[in-house]
Amino acid sequence: MALFSATLTKLIEEFAKLPGIGRKNAQRLAFHVLNGTEEQAEELAGAILAARRNLKFCTVCQNISDGEQCEICKNDSRDHSTICVVQDPRDVAAMERAREYKGVYHVLHGAISPLAGVGADDIKIRELILRINENIKEVIIATNPTVEGEATAMYIAKLIKPLGVRVTRIAHGIPVGGDLEYTDEVTLARAMQGRTEY
Amino acid sequence: MALFSATLTKLIEEFAKLPGIGRKNAQRLAFHVLNGTEEQAEELAGAILAARRNLKFCTVCQNISDGEQCEICKNDSRDHSTICVVQDPRDVAAMERAREYKGVYHVLHGAISPLAGVGADDIKIRELILRINENIKEVIIATNPTVEGEATAMYIAKLIKPLGVRVTRIAHGIPVGGDLEYTDEVTLARAMQGRTEY
Repeated sequence: MALFSATLTKLIEEFAKLPGIGRKNAQRLAFHVLNGTEEQAEELAGAILAARRNLKFCTVCQNISDGEQCEICKNDSRDHSTICVVQDPRDVAAMERAREYKGVYHVLHGAISPLAGVGADDIKIRELILRINENIKEVIIATNPTVEGEATAMYIAKLIKPLGVRVTRIAHGIPVGGDLEYTDEVTLARAMQGRTEY
Repeated sequence: MALFSATLTKLIEEFAKLPGIGRKNAQRLAFHVLNGTEEQAEELAGAILAARRNLKFCTVCQNISDGEQCEICKNDSRDHSTICVVQDPRDVAAMERAREYKGVYHVLHGAISPLAGVGADDIKIRELILRINENIKEVIIATNPTVEGEATAMYIAKLIKPLGVRVTRIAHGIPVGGDLEYTDEVTLARAMQGRTEY
């Protein structure tokens, strides 16, 4: 027999579908909802529906956006001649947190992965190529340093370089605060290859 | 500036309000919702609203219930002459999982705690007393072995014993699979006090 009422069981099941939420945790979240006010439950439910239903992508950079264009693409104080290419909207957020980059972005929404059946047409590469014109000075490829990310970077570089635009790749090396002794070989090799002059 | 669109930021904030969900985790959950279908988002939001709005308590045992009476109280094959008193609906679920107890329950929804300002009238003790009649043979008190749980157990025992009903307390001792060496003193003392004859 069911341990909880039907509606409560359903809520626990729904929470348990979320990534990283186990059965015990789902139960805890469900009881948190029950112990809260009806307004709090409505706020949470409303936010879920609003985020999913209003899901739009910036027509320029393909990042998640509330309107036609995202806040970064609409911002005139950003350098629109430099495009940083990332795999995911979360990468844009990570980059923005670093407060180093002042250009604009292009979100691919994935990486080329023949094994997973993801080809060049399945991610937003075509949209990137269409953005390249005489005003674009540099495309910085910041896909992840994985097999898929590297393959995607190579593919994009090959397409864009002939258009006369400078194409760069962000540096990979030992993370700041990282320890040489505990750095994996691949990263160490990359750090050596990417060494800079004093 | 905001790292994500307004609706996405709002969803991340709502998830971050849940217990045990940090900022990073909230972000992961929000993107899970965005990556899912609209139907999936509606199911989750609907379950939250339904559980909160339909929140009802069994008029007999005070457990969370979909109808007037919960499934256990409605079940004629349960022993309605034995009442197991617990603090929380989750305790009912835990007890049911053990498949040992065949009686019915009474959910107090808390424990007496003068420090937290919770008195005997703030939990469902009155409702328990009203259930005691000549058909009730035993009341098993299964509140938690904490200061509050023990105080609540003592209080209830004092009220019910004069009514001529057998009042018992579930045993506390070394958990099955537990190691004597790593058992705390209080539990060990309880285990000694509660020893049974071979």
